[in-house]
Amino acid sequence: MKIAVDAMGGDHAPEVVIQGVERARDELKDVEFLLYGDETKIRPLIKSDERLTLVHTTEKINSDDEPVRAIRTKKNASMVLAAQAVKNGEADACFSLGSTGALLAAGLFIVGRIKGIDRPGLMPTLPTLDGRGFNMLDVGANADNRAAQLVQYAIMGDFYARDVRGIKAPRIGLLNNGTEANKGDELHQTTYQLLSELAGIDFIGNVESDSLLRGVADVVVTDGFTGNATLKAIEGTAKSIMHLVKDAIMNGGVKGKLGGLLLQQQVRGIASTFDVSSYGGAVLLGLKAPVVKAHGGADADAVYYTVKQIDAMVQGQTLAKVVDWFTAHPVAAPKD
Amino acid sequence: MKIAVDAMGGDHAPEVVIQGVERARDELKDVEFLLYGDETKIRPLIKSDERLTLVHTTEKINSDDEPVRAIRTKKNASMVLAAQAVKNGEADACFSLGSTGALLAAGLFIVGRIKGIDRPGLMPTLPTLDGRGFNMLDVGANADNRAAQLVQYAIMGDFYARDVRGIKAPRIGLLNNGTEANKGDELHQTTYQLLSELAGIDFIGNVESDSLLRGVADVVVTDGFTGNATLKAIEGTAKSIMHLVKDAIMNGGVKGKLGGLLLQQQVRGIASTFDVSSYGGAVLLGLKAPVVKAHGGADADAVYYTVKQIDAMVQGQTLAKVVDWFTAHPVAAPKD
Repeated sequence: MKIAVDAMGGDHAPEVVIQGVERARDELKDVEFLLYGDETKIRPLIKSDERLTLVHTTEKINSDDEPVRAIRTKKNASMVLAAQAVKNGEADACFSLGSTGALLAAGLFIVGRIKGIDRPGLMPTLPTLDGRGFNMLDVGANADNRAAQLVQYAIMGDFYARDVRGIKAPRIGLLNNGTEANKGDELHQTTYQLLSELAGIDFIGNVESDSLLRGVADVVVTDGFTGNATLKAIEGTAKSIMHLVKDAIMNGGVKGKLGGLLLQQQVRGIASTFDVSSYGGAVLLGLKAPVVKAHGGADADAVYYTVKQIDAMVQGQTLAKVVDWFTAHPVAAPKD
Repeated sequence: MKIAVDAMGGDHAPEVVIQGVERARDELKDVEFLLYGDETKIRPLIKSDERLTLVHTTEKINSDDEPVRAIRTKKNASMVLAAQAVKNGEADACFSLGSTGALLAAGLFIVGRIKGIDRPGLMPTLPTLDGRGFNMLDVGANADNRAAQLVQYAIMGDFYARDVRGIKAPRIGLLNNGTEANKGDELHQTTYQLLSELAGIDFIGNVESDSLLRGVADVVVTDGFTGNATLKAIEGTAKSIMHLVKDAIMNGGVKGKLGGLLLQQQVRGIASTFDVSSYGGAVLLGLKAPVVKAHGGADADAVYYTVKQIDAMVQGQTLAKVVDWFTAHPVAAPKD
């Protein structure tokens, strides 16, 4: 198995990328890596060349580049070369810590969609209070979606949760503004109907965004606009409250600091409940190969887990199963 | 000024309703109250009859009643009678702690819409880290909205924030999946354009849901579906984390309990940052009179603040300004 790596994306590249990749390389003996990036910066960081090929390029995509334009004009950007390696069959998968929009464009225009999938969805794994986590898609690859596309997300999310997260019968929920079957706009009512009739998945009905962290579903299906707003609301609220907690401890005088010291382990426990880096990155699900966006602020551990995640997808042949499913069900995605 | 009160709605009715109303009555000397509900339950709770008229009814709307059907068939329900008092001109405003759906139906079918407003929106005041709070609408009165309706929300939210919250030039933001002008689906791109061209409001552009608690805008305009998902994601995440914090203190043994004791004041401070009861209830904005939904779990304080909120809306003639605006701008809400 070969994984193409954009070594230059993210806030702490290439250091954390190389560290994470080398740790994964040492553990996963049948994985090879193609590293794309600036040799002068990367070479000094590499401890061992074993199963690790460095491809030099100085071009890179910046976070403020217009995604589609960047992919088309910066032909030698590290991200573009990594995607190109997948397209050419030189690699089985690729990942980047760089611009989400550019990686989506690279996925669509270079790697390509699976036949039967209209619009790939971006799917992170998010935390739950019980530590099991849940998947949600689409969280923003698209500004809107049709019902048939949400059904495609349900099918792909189901395969992913089985293979990568080891859930035998993933509970699939539809994000809606109430739990009753007739809730939501036409899109959600139609999707509810289609998912209810879909054989082979455990559709548990509508779920509301206030119960996601309580682990109400293993895979949450949503249109990209609502998914994006929901994801960011969860992230922003968690961040704001943890900020308030830290502030309270730091500005609480001697009492606050002592209390903080006594609760240090517990506060870390809470922070670790919300640390999703061990789940890997967000998958652009619906492309011909695993294309994964790791967080821009990811550390070496998160990079390591992203490689493990990709390894599980490739070993589990998750996308081959998706291809098979959509070949066997050519009318499974009716026009809505 | 007269306020019609559904004394039977909510988890702790009629006790908290009567307590809150009497506190407000003692403070606001020019406000009279019409209380609708079960006399046998309410009468023993009342300390003084001053400016307080009790209208007996035993019928009430339950949380599992189908809203529109309940409003049409339970003609003597406490909530229906309160709305009817507004329609008949016997009261200037009404509020309930009962079913949101039923109150919306009562508002639409009994109180009626302001001319020029297609679809009233539900608008709560939500917390920000700096304690100023922000308004967001629609958070679920509608399953979908057109661009013209979002513009109506901006105008009404602007008047409300000025009159009730005393903000001189409220910053109006459009909830979107990115801050750039071209972000979002067609609905949001069109709305952005219309709000940019709208004179008299301070439109600050797109805002994302991860920055709402940081107080990025005073009024956030959104379609009911996205607003509902965002509101519930914020509420669910805040609740989950506060639950984790309390759990950590309670299950942290002696160290945890001692730490909790030392940080008690700070933890209370955080909880109070997220306590929005002093802002009053969620307003069904776009109806001919103030119709306010207080939280079902509201306590007497929250009821008191809901009366203060209604008082501010009536004193500020907020809805008269909205009526005037839409009379003066009959084409301000173009079809999209």
